[in-house]
Formats: sequence, structure tokens, C-alpha cells
Amino acid sequence: MNCVVHQSPGLWRHPRDRADRYSDLSYWTDLARILERGKFDALFMADVLGVYDVYGGNTDHALREGTQVPLNDPMLSVSAMAAVTEHLGFGVTCTLSYEPPFTLARRISTLDHLTKGRIGWNIVTGYLDSAARGVSGAASQPKHDTRYQIAEEYMELVYKLWEGSWEEGAVLRDRDSGVFTDPAKVHRIRHEGEFFKLDAIHLSEPSPQRTPVLFQAGTSSKGRDFAARQAECVFMAAPSKTVARGYVADIRKRAAAYGRDPYSIKIFNLTTAIVGATPDAAREKHADYRSYVSIPGALTLLSGWTGIDFSAYDLDEPLRYIRNEAVHSAVESFTTADPSRVWTVREVAEWIGIGGFGPLLVGSASEVADEMESWVAETDLDGFNLAYAVTPESFVDIADLLVPELQRRGRYKTDYAAGTLREKLFPGHGPRLSDTHPAAQSRKTILRAAE
Amino acid sequence: MNCVVHQSPGLWRHPRDRADRYSDLSYWTDLARILERGKFDALFMADVLGVYDVYGGNTDHALREGTQVPLNDPMLSVSAMAAVTEHLGFGVTCTLSYEPPFTLARRISTLDHLTKGRIGWNIVTGYLDSAARGVSGAASQPKHDTRYQIAEEYMELVYKLWEGSWEEGAVLRDRDSGVFTDPAKVHRIRHEGEFFKLDAIHLSEPSPQRTPVLFQAGTSSKGRDFAARQAECVFMAAPSKTVARGYVADIRKRAAAYGRDPYSIKIFNLTTAIVGATPDAAREKHADYRSYVSIPGALTLLSGWTGIDFSAYDLDEPLRYIRNEAVHSAVESFTTADPSRVWTVREVAEWIGIGGFGPLLVGSASEVADEMESWVAETDLDGFNLAYAVTPESFVDIADLLVPELQRRGRYKTDYAAGTLREKLFPGHGPRLSDTHPAAQSRKTILRAAE
Repeated sequence: MNCVVHQSPGLWRHPRDRADRYSDLSYWTDLARILERGKFDALFMADVLGVYDVYGGNTDHALREGTQVPLNDPMLSVSAMAAVTEHLGFGVTCTLSYEPPFTLARRISTLDHLTKGRIGWNIVTGYLDSAARGVSGAASQPKHDTRYQIAEEYMELVYKLWEGSWEEGAVLRDRDSGVFTDPAKVHRIRHEGEFFKLDAIHLSEPSPQRTPVLFQAGTSSKGRDFAARQAECVFMAAPSKTVARGYVADIRKRAAAYGRDPYSIKIFNLTTAIVGATPDAAREKHADYRSYVSIPGALTLLSGWTGIDFSAYDLDEPLRYIRNEAVHSAVESFTTADPSRVWTVREVAEWIGIGGFGPLLVGSASEVADEMESWVAETDLDGFNLAYAVTPESFVDIADLLVPELQRRGRYKTDYAAGTLREKLFPGHGPRLSDTHPAAQSRKTILRAAE
Repeated sequence: MNCVVHQSPGLWRHPRDRADRYSDLSYWTDLARILERGKFDALFMADVLGVYDVYGGNTDHALREGTQVPLNDPMLSVSAMAAVTEHLGFGVTCTLSYEPPFTLARRISTLDHLTKGRIGWNIVTGYLDSAARGVSGAASQPKHDTRYQIAEEYMELVYKLWEGSWEEGAVLRDRDSGVFTDPAKVHRIRHEGEFFKLDAIHLSEPSPQRTPVLFQAGTSSKGRDFAARQAECVFMAAPSKTVARGYVADIRKRAAAYGRDPYSIKIFNLTTAIVGATPDAAREKHADYRSYVSIPGALTLLSGWTGIDFSAYDLDEPLRYIRNEAVHSAVESFTTADPSRVWTVREVAEWIGIGGFGPLLVGSASEVADEMESWVAETDLDGFNLAYAVTPESFVDIADLLVPELQRRGRYKTDYAAGTLREKLFPGHGPRLSDTHPAAQSRKTILRAAE
């Protein structure tokens, strides 16, 4: 995230943490180089368009702690990172709630061109009411279900722009004939729907992937349904294997119900790894990191995510009690895995303090690799979305200690595959969205209409 | 412009032209390095959000000729160019017609951070109806005057976000106390106006310039008025010194009427220079370039700019006749300078063919420098916005031939000044917007309200 505190509140104070340099371009180019050294598939950048103002009912805690505020735009550092790397992908979060499909589609096409096809788009509809106030002055966002209806129509439009407006071979770049584009192969998208109107050609010529790799992270039933139909990659943040297993099975089941190969969706869990040269070194590092966790910072995040103001509760109050008055799927996660365990507010805050809702794996490379293998085996996960505790140290340790161990075990690539991000994530797949994806259907319709 | 044909229709076919590599990141980083070698103040990137569909009543000509379509987003290559340069500024065009002030303000703040204060914003309201159709499905844009009312309110809001939301010293980055930001020094902007509502803090902490250097290019009376009050730099595209002189005097007079130092606004004219090692070499180069000019391409641009479909006219028809039925300030320019000269459609197209409406200066470095000095002396201009005929060759010739000549004459800097783009453009000025600018007034109001 283009900010100081993403998922490790308080740890920006650690002497080796560099997150407070987030507004410096070299912070991003250095990070990209580290990740490519570690053969990470992609750098994922989260984003929100508001401030965490639920905790204490104002923005004071978020500002003081730096929890996801100040927060810069995630898209704008991508081209610099692309210039210093060759293979690393970029999964950029961009809400569809406050920008017309026409301009968002062009921005993403531009990035896909400039990165030679290394762009993924994390589709979000936003969860902070403060974003709605910021952008439009409205007191709150559209209702959750309406947001997904808007999202469905939005996706239909960006698919048409990306897939249907410019045919293959439309761009000739023919210096001899003087024809840059064959106009017969460029189609105007005409749409008049419930939420959007459009009558235009896509402004960008087809980029290497056309449609970016589609990421989604919905956890509600509507959100899962959306992910099962639209997403190529799904993020989740399950704290335990039990919760993860249920979520993965549900997504794959829903995908199958929509006629998609359930394994054509790659599912990644938010995970934080603290890796040391030895088991003891890792545990010492963890103890050191833990001493920097900010409980108010963690509760500021938790309150924003759940909509529950945790400043009103005693830190030693059990979560089960809170659950009775405002059940929210995120908080629910902690109790679902082991219904007998009672979590206190403080314990949840400590959990969130390093790595948010995701699990924390601490150990030598061998121990962490064991645990990752067990997660994959027991939950049917495809991979991990690795958060940092201390940046860039967390990623350096992963690249230099954990990755070689995973490679020795044959569980991790020894080199990048050729091609676009889509081709790297889905071996044997071409650069373009699969023909079985709903977007491909809308592409065919447009081309038939043009015939 | 992030496209193939900006102001030299047909010249992308020239064997040495590289504009058709516009979607490749190295095209932009190479260009940035050339410009910094030539100590250009800034790279200016134009943009539109629609297609030139007036000529012939459809988009076929624009597509075939590549005139400003396909067209990628100009903002997204900036960070890569910033990473390979130290001083070059970036003037990015961004329309305020289709994006909330809240998100645009964050995008520009982000770029100002990443470039360490090298961002300028060219404020436009758009002139193509096709943009309105593309974004909102509306048949046309809001009326010209309404667009400027919207722009005034928009500017008030972005100023408040940039100048008034975060006080100096709000960000502490204090690892010892754990306070990243002092919440008492961050202010929510509350606004309920005719066109916009807002109730939020700015998401970005103050960037080096806070408000980017403000560029504007309005030519209508409303547009000039807007520029005279808001702009720090003004672009124009006057074909002759007579036209330029009148325009410059008018802008300075309007600025003075608003209580601003008339010379606190820097005025640049669109100009194309074809520079050769000798006078003959330059003329040969010009003849060579001219043979690539596309008349339909030029008329596609002209029709879009004026709203007149020039495909309905004979190429040898005099422009004076056309003027009678649809007077437009842009076409008017050609006749104002010398009312006795009758321009034909073909002659105007040929003029536009290399460098758009701006003048074309052809010669040795010494000849072109003479002509530039004469433009400055006779029109009271501050400088030039140099278009390319053939890219990057036009800029290489300027950097390597013309700039040394101007330096010998003491008319051009021998090194960049330190600091932000604003400090470079306005020696003795600080990085922040002047206290006499209207935005500074709104800043003071906000801070007083917070006391």
C-alpha cells in the first residue's frame, strides 16, 4: 500500500523499517528489485479512498498511528518499478465506485502497455463510508448489494472496451500505406444500462493482455459470487486453516457452478512470514518486532474493517460478547475455527498487529516452508499474499532465506516463465483472458454485432 | 501526448520517427533523458478524452491517420521518467470534467511526492463532445461557460485539499513518540457548493510543492479570465507575432486587473523548430519532413479543434468564406494577423501539418535563435512550448544544436536551478504557491477557521 502502515501497525517505528520513505520513488524501485530477486509473481498494492475513522469516531487515531493514512495513489509508481524489472507483475487495487469505466479502462490499458503485460487489477468497491463522503459528499456508500450490481455492469463495460472495441489486427502501423489503424476493425461500444451510459471506442489500442489479470477479494456471499464468476485470482485473509479450507472450497464450488474449472482460479491467503537464519534467530526477531506493535493502531484497522468501534470495549473483554451485538464476517473468522476458544479484544489486536487477519509464520526457512506446505495441503490454497512486518526486511528474508528452501523442495519456480503476468500465473495459458471467461462471451457478441 | 500523432500528422511515417513506439516505456525514459540533456524546463504532455470525429462525421480518418488516437493516459509514465532524471519537470494535462476533486488531488500529490516536486498540472475542461459521450453517455459536454463555473469550484476544492488540509509540521514521523501525524494539524475540508460536495481530509501528506505548478491554455474570453486568475504558466498557440502580442498583452492586463503582477505569469507559445547544422541542411530537412505531411490528418485535427467539418470544403477554398458561416477563434487567428492575406483550406492544413497552429522556425541554430529572440522581443512572450516534427530527432537537434547557441547568447540557462519545478521556473520563489495567488487566500481562510 502506498502508505506507512499497511498490516503492521506500530512497526514503522522499528529502527530498520523503511515504510516512512513510502513517498520516495527509490523506496518503490528498491522494493521491486528485491521482489524480482525473490522471483515473486507480483507486487500487490492495496488501496482505500477514505480514512479509518470508526475507532473513537474520528480520524485522530488513524493519523497519529499512520494507519493507512497518509495514503498516496498506488498506480503512479508502477511505471518506475516496471523500468527496473523485467518479470515482476503488479496487482493494483482500484475502486470502481468513483471513476467512469471509460477512463479507468484507459489507465489500466496504459499500464499494461508500459509494463508489457504485467498488470493485474484488484477490483474493489470500497468499504469505508469516509470514501463516499470524500468523493461525493454523500453520507455513506451505496448499500453493499447495490455496489455489486454496479460492479457487474461496470465489468461488462470495461470488458467491452478491452476485448470488443479493437479487433486483432486493427493496428497496422504501416508506414508505407500511411494507415496506422484500420477503422473497419475498431468498434464503438454502445451501452445504456441501469448505472452507466457509454458510446465510444476504447481510446487505447489492445495491450498485451487486453484485460488485466483480474484479482478480487470479496468475502461476503455476493462478493464470493462475484469472484467466482469474474476473478482469475482471489485474495483472502483467513487466520486459520479451518477458515481458509472452507473459503477455498466455497469459491471453487461457486466457480464450478458457473461452468468454470474450479482450479482456473488461483487463491492466495494473506500471510506474514518472519524468517530467520535459525529457529532461535527467527523467534528473537519476532519478539523484537512484537515489542513495536501498536494496540490502538491495530484496533483502528479492526474498527475500520468491521464497522465496530473497539474503543468502546475493554481490552480484556471477550470477543464473543461483542459478536452478539454486531456480527461481522471478519470478526467471526476468529471464532469459527475453534468455537471453544474465547478471544479477547487485546488478543485479536495482537494478532492483527503483525500481518492483519492473516496467519503469522515464524521460524527458520525450513520451518516456515513446512508450515506453508501444510497450509497448501490442508486448505487447497494456491499460494500466499505475503505482507511485511518490517519493510523491506521481511521481503529480503523471504527472497534470500525462504525462497531457496522452497526451490530446493521443488515447490517454487527457479526462474520466471516467459510472457505476460497471465502467462506466468497460468502456465500454458495465452496472454489473453480465457475463452471460458464471461468477458470472452461479451467479446464475441460485439464482434458478431459488427459483422 | 501519449500517442502517435500529436501536432505533426503523417510524420510518424518518416523513417527516423519513433512516435509509433509511444506505448513502450523506453520511448519515454529515452525522451526524458534527451530533454534533461537539453536542460528543458519540463516535458509537457497534452491529453484529450475523446476522438477527433468532426472531420467526415466519424472516427475513420482519425484512426487511419493515428491523429491523437490510440491515446494512452499521460500520467502513468511520469514516475519512470522521474526515475531517470533529476531536474526535468512534467506538465501533465488532466481534465477536471470527469473525475472528483478528491481523487485527482491525490493523484497529483502522489506524483509531486514521487518526483520530489517536479509536477505541473495543465488544467483543462475538454473540448471534444466525444469525451462526454465516452464517459457519461451524454450527447455533448456542458456548455462552455458552465464548464468554467464548474472549473472555478473545482479549483477551490483542490486548493483546499492541497493547501488547507494539512498544516506545516503536521507530519512528525517521530519513531520515539510513535506519532506519525499530529491530528490537531490536519483539517477536514467541508464544502457544499453548486457542483460539488466534499467532507474529508486530503489523503496525501503535503508534497514538496503542495499545489502543482498550474498551467492553463484557455483562449476564449472565459478561458483567458480563468488563466489570468489561476494560472502560473499559460500556453498559447499563436501562428504569428501579431496574434501572440495581442494575446500576451491581454493575459497580462487581465492578471493585473486581478491584482497579480502581470509578469508573475509565464507565457509560452507552441512552436516547432527544425534546426540543422547549416541553413541548407535545415531547409533540406524541412523539405524532407514536409513530404510526409498528411493533409487529411491535418484537417482531422483542425476539424476537431474548430468544430467545423473541413471534409465538406474544397482544399482550395478560401478560409475567409468558411469564416462567414462558423467563426471560431482558432481559425480566426490566421486572418487576424494579416487581414489582407487569404488562406485556403490546403494552406492552413499545410501550416498545421508541422507543429499545429504554432509557427515553424527552420534554420541553423543561429537563425532559429535569432527568430526566437525576435519573438520574445516583439510579443513579450516568456518562452516556447516546443512541439516535435519528427521525434525524438526534433528534440535531439534542439538539445545539441540550438541550446548551445542560446547559451552562448546568454539567453538560456547553463544549468538547472536547485529545487522544485516552481523554484526553477520562478527564480527567487519558494516551492509553494505564492501568497498573492487566490489559492493562498483559501488556505488562510481554512487555517483561521481551524483556530
